[in-house]
Amino acid sequence: MESKKYLFNEEIPLENIEKGIKRKMLGYNNDLMMVKIYFEKGTVGARHIHPHTQTSYVEKGKFEVSIGDETKVLYEGDGFFVPPNVEHRVKALKPGILLDVFNPCREEFLNHSAL
Amino acid sequence: MESKKYLFNEEIPLENIEKGIKRKMLGYNNDLMMVKIYFEKGTVGARHIHPHTQTSYVEKGKFEVSIGDETKVLYEGDGFFVPPNVEHRVKALKPGILLDVFNPCREEFLNHSAL
Repeated sequence: MESKKYLFNEEIPLENIEKGIKRKMLGYNNDLMMVKIYFEKGTVGARHIHPHTQTSYVEKGKFEVSIGDETKVLYEGDGFFVPPNVEHRVKALKPGILLDVFNPCREEFLNHSAL
Repeated sequence: MESKKYLFNEEIPLENIEKGIKRKMLGYNNDLMMVKIYFEKGTVGARHIHPHTQTSYVEKGKFEVSIGDETKVLYEGDGFFVPPNVEHRVKALKPGILLDVFNPCREEFLNHSAL
């Protein structure tokens, strides 16, 4: 399982994930997956947990990010790291974009049909 | 081996890697590593190969990207994917920023002393 080698922004479907959250899939294989996530202001990515390692980057906006029992506010250019099996949550304090990258890939993301 | 959970842009050292290329380390563990790379116009990331999977995102600029024997021009918001052991090269056609993510981590990046 592997994405295309070149991923052109205009060609990538913008998937509606839930109210206030949209997603574009970037490069991936079984081991690694990059996902661009668009948040409307006030949207919460609910507290959740997964066995995947996650490393993320704030491309735009301002996010309140909770990892385990700690919460910080992050701005453009900041990043965060979520070890496997650690609960985390994000809240968009402004309209924003996160780049989330996972190891291994989130297979369930590939089965999502755009709404 | 694991990075901090919160990575604040202003606190991350900007490392001089080679002429025209600087780097900031974002979140990582042994399995996953995110790196932000700043290119001056005209700079080439020489053709190279590694066993790591790589997924990358063009945050700013315009890059000529070669993967194997194919070359394309990528703009802000585009991405590319490099399977393990496939030669690749980038050239910054404008000043630019790439987010490169690797599986597993590039251990040698952690031993680099900022110049």
